[in-house]
Amino acid sequence: MHIQDTIAALATAPGAGAIAVIRVSGTHALDLVSSVFIAKSGKILKEQQSHTLHLGNIVDGNRIIDEALVSIFKGKRSYTGEPTVEISCHGSAYIQQEILQLLFRKGCRAAKAGEFTLRAFINGKMDLSQAEAVADLIASDNAGSHQIAMQQMRGGFSNEIAQLRQELLNFASLIELELDFAEEDVEFANREEFQNLISKITRVLKRLIDSFATGNVIKNGIPVAIVGEPNVGKSTLLNALLNEERAIVSDIAGTTRDTIEDEIAIGGIGFRFIDTAGIRETVDVIEGLGIKKTFEKISQAQVVLYLINALAPSASGSSPKGRAFADLQLEIEKIKNRFPDKPLVLVANKMDHLSDAEQSEIKSQLNALIVAAQKSAILLISAKTGTGVDELKEQLLQFVNTGALLNNETLVTNSRHYDSLLKALEEIEKVQLGIDAGLSGDLLAIDIREALYHFGEITGQVTNDELLGNIFANFCIGK
Amino acid sequence: MHIQDTIAALATAPGAGAIAVIRVSGTHALDLVSSVFIAKSGKILKEQQSHTLHLGNIVDGNRIIDEALVSIFKGKRSYTGEPTVEISCHGSAYIQQEILQLLFRKGCRAAKAGEFTLRAFINGKMDLSQAEAVADLIASDNAGSHQIAMQQMRGGFSNEIAQLRQELLNFASLIELELDFAEEDVEFANREEFQNLISKITRVLKRLIDSFATGNVIKNGIPVAIVGEPNVGKSTLLNALLNEERAIVSDIAGTTRDTIEDEIAIGGIGFRFIDTAGIRETVDVIEGLGIKKTFEKISQAQVVLYLINALAPSASGSSPKGRAFADLQLEIEKIKNRFPDKPLVLVANKMDHLSDAEQSEIKSQLNALIVAAQKSAILLISAKTGTGVDELKEQLLQFVNTGALLNNETLVTNSRHYDSLLKALEEIEKVQLGIDAGLSGDLLAIDIREALYHFGEITGQVTNDELLGNIFANFCIGK
Repeated sequence: MHIQDTIAALATAPGAGAIAVIRVSGTHALDLVSSVFIAKSGKILKEQQSHTLHLGNIVDGNRIIDEALVSIFKGKRSYTGEPTVEISCHGSAYIQQEILQLLFRKGCRAAKAGEFTLRAFINGKMDLSQAEAVADLIASDNAGSHQIAMQQMRGGFSNEIAQLRQELLNFASLIELELDFAEEDVEFANREEFQNLISKITRVLKRLIDSFATGNVIKNGIPVAIVGEPNVGKSTLLNALLNEERAIVSDIAGTTRDTIEDEIAIGGIGFRFIDTAGIRETVDVIEGLGIKKTFEKISQAQVVLYLINALAPSASGSSPKGRAFADLQLEIEKIKNRFPDKPLVLVANKMDHLSDAEQSEIKSQLNALIVAAQKSAILLISAKTGTGVDELKEQLLQFVNTGALLNNETLVTNSRHYDSLLKALEEIEKVQLGIDAGLSGDLLAIDIREALYHFGEITGQVTNDELLGNIFANFCIGK
Repeated sequence: MHIQDTIAALATAPGAGAIAVIRVSGTHALDLVSSVFIAKSGKILKEQQSHTLHLGNIVDGNRIIDEALVSIFKGKRSYTGEPTVEISCHGSAYIQQEILQLLFRKGCRAAKAGEFTLRAFINGKMDLSQAEAVADLIASDNAGSHQIAMQQMRGGFSNEIAQLRQELLNFASLIELELDFAEEDVEFANREEFQNLISKITRVLKRLIDSFATGNVIKNGIPVAIVGEPNVGKSTLLNALLNEERAIVSDIAGTTRDTIEDEIAIGGIGFRFIDTAGIRETVDVIEGLGIKKTFEKISQAQVVLYLINALAPSASGSSPKGRAFADLQLEIEKIKNRFPDKPLVLVANKMDHLSDAEQSEIKSQLNALIVAAQKSAILLISAKTGTGVDELKEQLLQFVNTGALLNNETLVTNSRHYDSLLKALEEIEKVQLGIDAGLSGDLLAIDIREALYHFGEITGQVTNDELLGNIFANFCIGK
């Protein structure tokens, strides 16, 4: 791909700030900005060294548009890998627009979403998975998603892939070379070493594929289904979880009539709390649909938080005291039967209204409910006073596998990478079957090439315009 | 004022962007950032030259928070006039906060609103009126307000004041020196030159004071009162004015029940269109209040745009055809009597529905109405088709004195400066009276010192914490 044109865009957030940065990149970036910039020092901008800053005026003929600080990056020593100039101007939307319009008149064009990073990829400053991590990094809003984006951006994951790909490529070449000497029956590729490599690749691929379950939820927020009737204190609980962490709440109106998602950071990990309608048996069609949706939400969740009112009976009687205890038992059985491996936290709210004796009683009642469950916990809390909320947080963190994150392991977070890894594994398994069956090199080579192709998709050695278009369309303009 | 502490703040707009810039300023800025930055080159940040850029990692111990580009400004060679470091990081709110929190832990504190610019003023990088212009520049949203802010920031106005102040100060010193030699009856200060200076100062002050009327409205938007009943096409007209200019509309719900302000840029000048209730005579108390408010709005406006429906009678009959022509005449007389110097544009809308003959008829009818008015114009337009809208824009620009802007004259836009100029003029006029009355030097000197004081208020030679607090509180954080 050959890049000729010079692009420009606002790189900082739109809106009012003290300063704004306009980024200009391309072969003519320096000439172009030089033609509209007069340095206070009188120096000629394009004669200055790379990585230097210059104060001066951005001018349109005689008209001064702004006093600005200009950073220059020469040759390949820039983010994009091509000459780049960054103009740090006053943060007025009017001034930003005037400078951009001026640059467009002088011959550059507006950058498309992600185009600076696309150029960085094309110019070899980063591979495709690193480029994708840039967008993840900008979108990161907690320690967990930040850490995995940072790790991916620094090449932790793609280095591993690239290295395996190189080793496999070497063997592919040797095996293909054998084909040229087919009549002489030579083996350039050491079959034992090759078997070892295939085993290693299989192990690594399986580990990376497995890591997606953790990586993806850490990136997007760990889904927790809250099952509980309207009066049990769901929103009070969410506020209690939220307030202590001072994190960002985003209320996304769900697509179903009673599903709300709140994202809350707990211990640096994003959790998405998904409110569900509850699962009481009913003959009503509308409520029946609600139950179906509740089960859907639970199936998507990593943890089920079953919230009950520990207090005296409400209208619907959702406390073990007021409500037929058998009902609660039935519902929990239903969840356990359907989702035997899903961690379940049974939380009795409003404990601040109970005596010690009543608390003990409820606890033992609830314990009886879940004794058979694999991964489960019982907590008495008061969302209102905050009692037990920290324990709940710890319990949630315990039920989620964040060990990989803590150990700084490579985690796959991107479903595109996940797909390619699955396909690569499929091909590698074919290669293994081929080895086991004693297939000839020419037949092995076909599957190896397929596997190499899928490795290449991840790092970007194999790519096409449509794929790049899809990836960079998700970037913001200016990145 | 002695500054010891180092301050930090986000300098770019909050929210999602490709990059964000965190500014750190103060004696220890470079040491502080050096302690959390590891350059890719391995170079030690604080050993590098001023005005250079360095790529590296922002680290908190072993944890990498971000890959960032760091700009360093040493000694007094920065915006603030003290060592400054700018960290250009990824535009994630999480990363911005992590870096700021890290810097705060390392010993700097959060900058207050405008504190970087306050330091620039204290460190002598700019005078007070220039500092105030920085905020105006960031707030500028059209060519007019941008130009006057730019001019003020570049010192056009304060240079003039500072020079007059210096000349006056010299005379004050000479006159005061005479007092020491009072018995010898000498005159160090040439009285003719002194008279010339006082005359010159008087002229300049009067010009600057007069310029406030223009400068202030250009800065804040020129108020145009639209008088017209609900059905005459006011909003269609505003949209027609707006669409062609592709400018920013801000709908500010007024404090009165039917006052709406729209700001629209016409020919690079901001106009604020203020909708009024109209001025039909009534006995109804509520409507009577409406009329009172309409007159208030007209008194605040620079131009009155009287909009009528040129079409056949509506329910309220606001067209000259359908409505008693005498009513219209009465209303216009009323405006002319109350505001004889206010430019009046009488606009008949919906002309696209009229034949040529009907258009001529209306035109002559309307002409008869305003023949005696000083500054007035008649326009037939169609807000719907856009016919006549350009003529209306030209007419508005003509009625507003933008000549000073076009001639790049110094305009006073700040009411604080205006107040000080008025007070300075008052003192200078006392000096003039003193000269005329042949007062002795010791008496003249008192008034001269007073005038000097008010000059000093503008440029900041005379200041106090309260004044500075008020000025910089209006800045954004990070500037």
